Amino acid sequence: MATLRVPDVVPSPTDDCERLRKAFKGWGTDEKTVISILGHRNANQRRKIRETYHQLYNKSLIADLESELSGDFGKAVILWTYDPAERDARLAKQALQTTKRGINHLHPIIEMACAPSSPHHLVAVRQAYCSLYDCSLEEDIGSTLSLPLRKILVGLVSSYRYDKEVISMDVANSEADLLHNAIDKKQLDHDYVVWILSTRNVFQLRATFQCYTKKFGNPIEEDIKNSGKGDLENLLRVIIICLDSPERHFAEVVQNSIIGIGTDEDMLTRAIVTRAEVDMMKVRGEYFNMYKSSMDNAVIGDTSGDYKNFLLTLLGAKI
Amino acid sequence: MATLRVPDVVPSPTDDCERLRKAFKGWGTDEKTVISILGHRNANQRRKIRETYHQLYNKSLIADLESELSGDFGKAVILWTYDPAERDARLAKQALQTTKRGINHLHPIIEMACAPSSPHHLVAVRQAYCSLYDCSLEEDIGSTLSLPLRKILVGLVSSYRYDKEVISMDVANSEADLLHNAIDKKQLDHDYVVWILSTRNVFQLRATFQCYTKKFGNPIEEDIKNSGKGDLENLLRVIIICLDSPERHFAEVVQNSIIGIGTDEDMLTRAIVTRAEVDMMKVRGEYFNMYKSSMDNAVIGDTSGDYKNFLLTLLGAKI
Repeated sequence: MATLRVPDVVPSPTDDCERLRKAFKGWGTDEKTVISILGHRNANQRRKIRETYHQLYNKSLIADLESELSGDFGKAVILWTYDPAERDARLAKQALQTTKRGINHLHPIIEMACAPSSPHHLVAVRQAYCSLYDCSLEEDIGSTLSLPLRKILVGLVSSYRYDKEVISMDVANSEADLLHNAIDKKQLDHDYVVWILSTRNVFQLRATFQCYTKKFGNPIEEDIKNSGKGDLENLLRVIIICLDSPERHFAEVVQNSIIGIGTDEDMLTRAIVTRAEVDMMKVRGEYFNMYKSSMDNAVIGDTSGDYKNFLLTLLGAKI
Repeated sequence: MATLRVPDVVPSPTDDCERLRKAFKGWGTDEKTVISILGHRNANQRRKIRETYHQLYNKSLIADLESELSGDFGKAVILWTYDPAERDARLAKQALQTTKRGINHLHPIIEMACAPSSPHHLVAVRQAYCSLYDCSLEEDIGSTLSLPLRKILVGLVSSYRYDKEVISMDVANSEADLLHNAIDKKQLDHDYVVWILSTRNVFQLRATFQCYTKKFGNPIEEDIKNSGKGDLENLLRVIIICLDSPERHFAEVVQNSIIGIGTDEDMLTRAIVTRAEVDMMKVRGEYFNMYKSSMDNAVIGDTSGDYKNFLLTLLGAKI
């Protein structure tokens, strides 16, 4: 499911650190070597490299990457090199510090809450957030956003979903009714809605959404879209898609980052970095289904240089 | 802060297991030996004993304790021998299966949510709950309780509080107002109340409660009590006390378990087993302050035999 390619025989963390250190030395940086190492190591291996680098040189690898690399390439490599929980905590903080209108800047929080790699990952993000920012993620959501967005996001980031496929068709049926009722009465932030979306396991939720379509004719995200164009409707639509099909959501994120004039590199980087070792193979497949073209070609068309090479490496290309 | 006494030199898990196995053999069980071992081992040491026992005899220590011990003594030893997260998950399930009126049977859930030994412990309980019961704790709370109790308890068990002492007096001041307003308008389940009680760190909450008393004359739990005698008021009062002073809550639990005719052994056992290695020293001190008598004497007066000896061992007595 991941597109990350880790070599069969992985060099020791010490070897990797020495090669990285060498790549940083002298005039300029040997970006190719940085990509060839970090772009082919999983989260656990990157953690060992960070730790070993600190032991060997008494310096932070992240800090050295910050001073050696620049631009979108630098940002992408650094985001990738962080521990995934710390990375997501930082993305959440950035999202909450953004003062743009609309809800697009809140997507990273929805993604980590509704499509985490595991329920533990979300807890690890909350823990990292506390360590980095001296308060809980939920507190920051509460003091940054107003109702009803706050209520829904606090519920979602507090979730610890059962992660096995246990489905009750009775629950699907009755909760499809509750959701339909809430949409019908324009009570999208009803306690019931928040409770259903933030406690049910994703397999149950998918069954509930299927049941909804069967009973009421439209997919639930369409009914939400048709019920209004406000932030609340937009937020819920993204939440439902993230829960129902993370790969569809991330295919949309990649597409949105490249359509129109200019590229939203932060968005593109986030989608590829956060999913390369989770489900990027499925995201690529879904992208092809949705847009009848390859995601790799889209990335090639909209990026260049080391940044392009690094993203393609994470997408599984042999550079 | 704990009353549990662990010897300076702890025997190896294998030694402990062999002595336990011997204590189970033949006619009857040597309860004294069981107490002398398990009553003097911390959670980590008990885990190793459980694992070693399984390796040595291919049997579960818990299952053997179940067949060897009986009555309140057996229940107490077994509760103590479980992994603390599994123990609390089982207590939560029991609480949700109890159909008594009122909210007293929900106290265990409030305790693990509002006075956990650490934020990680609460997550570990949620994880254990998923493993044991094929659904999340929040789902079971939702399908067992109705609004508004459900809303408040789901919020609380989903919390992951920042665990260091960071206090803002501005927050204390404005949130004391919000809480007072909610009590005044009899909106105790207002989104604001749930959000404050389930996301703020306990140091902040204590400052907020102090600020409340200063501004409005009464401690908040008294104003809640005076605002009504329903389940919601009772629940919130216990929540506030658990957050404000877990030692006061547990002193009350011990006292409530022994006053009147007969003893509520399950309640007494729960208080001592769940706090013996957390803060029982403070609970004992608070008990003395509140009731002008010693908790040890109260336990001696209301229990007997092996059960008494086991509880006193956990309370730090030398038996």
